[in-house]
Amino acid sequence: MTTELELSVKLHALRQKMASLNLDAMLLTFLPDVRWLTRFSGSNGTVLLSRENAWLFTDFRYQEQVKIEVENAEPVITSDGYVAEMKSGKFPLGTRVGFQADKLAYATVEKLRTELPDVEFVPVSQFCEEFVAVKDSDELDKMRRAVAITDKVFEKILDVISPKVTEREVAAEISYWNKRFGAEKDSFDPIVASGPRGAFPHARATDNRIQNNSLVVIDMGCVVEGYCSDQTRTVAVGKIDDEARKVYNLVLEAHWLGIRSAKAGMTGRELDAIPREFLTARGYGEAFGHSLGHAVGLQVHELPTIGRKGEMKIPVGAVITIEPGIYLPGKFGVRIEDMALITENGAEPLPKATKELIEL
Amino acid sequence: MTTELELSVKLHALRQKMASLNLDAMLLTFLPDVRWLTRFSGSNGTVLLSRENAWLFTDFRYQEQVKIEVENAEPVITSDGYVAEMKSGKFPLGTRVGFQADKLAYATVEKLRTELPDVEFVPVSQFCEEFVAVKDSDELDKMRRAVAITDKVFEKILDVISPKVTEREVAAEISYWNKRFGAEKDSFDPIVASGPRGAFPHARATDNRIQNNSLVVIDMGCVVEGYCSDQTRTVAVGKIDDEARKVYNLVLEAHWLGIRSAKAGMTGRELDAIPREFLTARGYGEAFGHSLGHAVGLQVHELPTIGRKGEMKIPVGAVITIEPGIYLPGKFGVRIEDMALITENGAEPLPKATKELIEL
Repeated sequence: MTTELELSVKLHALRQKMASLNLDAMLLTFLPDVRWLTRFSGSNGTVLLSRENAWLFTDFRYQEQVKIEVENAEPVITSDGYVAEMKSGKFPLGTRVGFQADKLAYATVEKLRTELPDVEFVPVSQFCEEFVAVKDSDELDKMRRAVAITDKVFEKILDVISPKVTEREVAAEISYWNKRFGAEKDSFDPIVASGPRGAFPHARATDNRIQNNSLVVIDMGCVVEGYCSDQTRTVAVGKIDDEARKVYNLVLEAHWLGIRSAKAGMTGRELDAIPREFLTARGYGEAFGHSLGHAVGLQVHELPTIGRKGEMKIPVGAVITIEPGIYLPGKFGVRIEDMALITENGAEPLPKATKELIEL
Repeated sequence: MTTELELSVKLHALRQKMASLNLDAMLLTFLPDVRWLTRFSGSNGTVLLSRENAWLFTDFRYQEQVKIEVENAEPVITSDGYVAEMKSGKFPLGTRVGFQADKLAYATVEKLRTELPDVEFVPVSQFCEEFVAVKDSDELDKMRRAVAITDKVFEKILDVISPKVTEREVAAEISYWNKRFGAEKDSFDPIVASGPRGAFPHARATDNRIQNNSLVVIDMGCVVEGYCSDQTRTVAVGKIDDEARKVYNLVLEAHWLGIRSAKAGMTGRELDAIPREFLTARGYGEAFGHSLGHAVGLQVHELPTIGRKGEMKIPVGAVITIEPGIYLPGKFGVRIEDMALITENGAEPLPKATKELIEL
């Protein structure tokens, strides 16, 4: 792993962007971006990046942690917050300072402008996104570990799923095994949606028992050193009818079509359109009511969006989900989702779990 | 339960505040506030509250859910977002419209001002906090259920804690039993910090085994219908020395002092000072390096803050934590935390779990 080099690449990329925007400094206040740049995992952290220096402001709770974690910036412990520190004059700002306009609260910007009247604060949206989208080897290693845990957890819960247990019990097992296999936590609340509830793409796990002779949608993920996994399988419990089998196979075909079609340089919209047209041609366009996918990283949903509004190009090194679905109200739902790494040659699915129909 | 009446009280309180600020309408974009007012639990929701009407804007994913959940507002399903809907002219706004300046991103405010140039958008900070702090009977019922689950989970994990298991295994059990006992999820990642790691107030659970002849700090909570619990116990595993026992008893005394001292109308700062002075007089002031507590509700940390910066008064109906601690680097930590309801007569702790030292 070329970790230090890779970290300095991040710093270099941000400084180049600062120069192109004619900024003397940039304020990173969005925690996932702060973590991405510095590895700092605390709940309070702000980076002030100048042309020459980088400081990370946090509070006394993280006094020990910053010594172990932080790279790419000099940690500063403060009890009065970063605005007061910026006002102190100890950190040369220059005159044009950018801030994350799509993340930072309006009132904080007003405070910055009031407290530092000689500085021009410049709104910048999507400052880090294009760089965050490209995973380095260290980040990929963490994501592969998260995916490997998710594969193991999926195997575990196949032993649990039956009409004897509730959706919530399966969700409890997922959360349990995530931690037992070494994840920090769930990357989102597991979705366990059986029978007609599978037709709600964002169904939460309920106290309903897993329905016999039907499908169950299981969408889950975990976090390893901050990095997320996100994976969906749909499995059959008991005997399912021909329609369910047909829909399963169509979604699987659409999924593989998405994997095969994904190429660096496409926009999310272009990729989304391919499985969507396939399902539409077979009469299931309306039943596929969400985006094909999204990028994943320190956040479970990142840019680029792989959907109708996805204008950002998918770069080499992005990790995206391919997750087509068909939802038939009152009947059932099917969704099949893998995370895939975009390489020079296409998309490489990261999970090992089979995508063929599992019948329990 | 006088649910409908109580919900309309919320609406009335916000409209009174709008009138006092001379606002024709108010935009609520902060999801916990949206949920607090309307009960809507989705991940995308914005309320536009005028003097006469209230609309909740969300997307097609929640088409069915809004019919079941939403009160106090008329749901509007939109694919273009709430700014476009506000622009459409279908929702009479008036001329002065407030927004949550301490929550809403700067870029969104810029967009609102560009798209709706005839409207004066007025920044308002802490618009809902004073009302959110006062829990109604329905909210209290949900919080009591969350606390009852936490009590049950604590009993369960007492059977698990031993030098044979790791901190992470205990954390996995907490997450598991939270769901098994009916919670939606953890209200935060459980803290399980054994031996010297207990001296880090925000330690995460690690793969270290629970240390014998030492203390372990367990801080955990769950979510029931959106409402959080938050509770800490410190238990002894094996034999502990006199210093550990002495520190435990001091923290317990400080905790009860906090409970007995809490009165409606005090500021968080005033309440924080009482156990702090007690511990300082006994030589442990420096070792109590965080706030005494915080309010709890739809968020695990709400206002009023019970700490040195807590200027807000604690109202009747608030639910706050009282969680003094002593942290001795290299040795161990002790924290004891209950949630307590502030009534006319003082503070009523909600959990039932004993606070006397448990020795396993």
